[in-house]
Amino acid sequence: MKRLLIIGIGAGDPDHLTFQGAKAIAAADVFFILDKGEVKQDLVRLRHELIEAHGRPPYRIVEARDPERDRTAPAYAAAVEDWRARRAELYGRMIDEELAEGQTGAFLVWGDPGVYDSTLAILERLPFPYEVVPGISSVSVLTARHRTSLTQVGRPVHITTGRRLSEEGASADDMVVMLDSRCAFEGMDGFHIYWGAYLGTPDEILVEGPVSEVAGRIRELREQARERKGWIMDTYLLRRLP
Amino acid sequence: MKRLLIIGIGAGDPDHLTFQGAKAIAAADVFFILDKGEVKQDLVRLRHELIEAHGRPPYRIVEARDPERDRTAPAYAAAVEDWRARRAELYGRMIDEELAEGQTGAFLVWGDPGVYDSTLAILERLPFPYEVVPGISSVSVLTARHRTSLTQVGRPVHITTGRRLSEEGASADDMVVMLDSRCAFEGMDGFHIYWGAYLGTPDEILVEGPVSEVAGRIRELREQARERKGWIMDTYLLRRLP
Repeated sequence: MKRLLIIGIGAGDPDHLTFQGAKAIAAADVFFILDKGEVKQDLVRLRHELIEAHGRPPYRIVEARDPERDRTAPAYAAAVEDWRARRAELYGRMIDEELAEGQTGAFLVWGDPGVYDSTLAILERLPFPYEVVPGISSVSVLTARHRTSLTQVGRPVHITTGRRLSEEGASADDMVVMLDSRCAFEGMDGFHIYWGAYLGTPDEILVEGPVSEVAGRIRELREQARERKGWIMDTYLLRRLP
Repeated sequence: MKRLLIIGIGAGDPDHLTFQGAKAIAAADVFFILDKGEVKQDLVRLRHELIEAHGRPPYRIVEARDPERDRTAPAYAAAVEDWRARRAELYGRMIDEELAEGQTGAFLVWGDPGVYDSTLAILERLPFPYEVVPGISSVSVLTARHRTSLTQVGRPVHITTGRRLSEEGASADDMVVMLDSRCAFEGMDGFHIYWGAYLGTPDEILVEGPVSEVAGRIRELREQARERKGWIMDTYLLRRLP
């Protein structure tokens, strides 16, 4: 039997790790780290730090290069499906070759493994039992850092993507928008925005205010930050103005 | 200067606490614990356990009885508003009387302080600076325990209440329903349900399946559990069947 752990490590700050996450790291024999190429080295580095801090030797780290996703494909879901199939093949091969019977393999996942992350969907396709350790999501960090609530009394909140917001417009009075590379908040003038980038890290940037007043500043900060670091990870809450 | 910390302690398992949460507990001089009466003693006990494990003496624990909310009032939001005003008065008085200048007071909040919790909305009304420490929400634990994702590729998820679901019906293919005392999932026959009660605790109950097949069993388990323990805390994800 080979066993897998999908461990949510939180949204950037090593102290977002839970005690449950630390114990899961200590229980692993092999860590699988998938590298997304030249950028996002910070994300890989945090994983190494957490393994060093909480791993129980002897353990091994197996690193591989994640397949590229075709970002030019017009059919988003189909492109993601193809990408997942190729990743499942790679992950399956790594587990076959690098994890011995009776051993536990671990994947350290940014944020919470249930929120717009594909590791779960990939491991579902493989014939190994797995457990999921919940993590602090960037949504929780965003609202905590802005000292506001995700939800209002008795009201719903929608979690959606930048693509959806662009195509469909506002669907609720409170919306969290993730994976937005196109500044879909622009023009949402009846809303207040709570925006955050690189949440929980030393590079964290926070901006809040009515969209009509701060949208330009956010676009500018996004562009400067992406140029400086080579990548950006941001998210925001839109709340309809009273 | 008096400083306040609102610390998310996770959804039931003491190991849901983050290292950031543990450090925040260690930084507090006074812990404010609001008791909801005879029931939910388990929730109060977990707070005491975490304070004992991570608090740095000397610290003090101040306990008070939370005002009752009028659950018979027809106007839900107005009743909650009135309840919050009375709680703000109580909290303000406790902080005035029990926290000295220069000290740090802490509120330990179940789950994540941003998700359907009122502590933040109450402290916003008071003239003290506060920080929020994000916590593992019951939503994260629910999906982790069911080893499923909250979100599907490029698709939105709605977080809503049982009351809303009853009144408005399905608003999306993926919905998390909280605060549901009325089994609002009944009749949602086109959906698969991932249900969990007392998540993260030794009393945890999990059920999943098509609503048409498992709704009756969930209602029965809910009633039995509530009778046995005196209270129930449950949540669920509804996902439209393909």
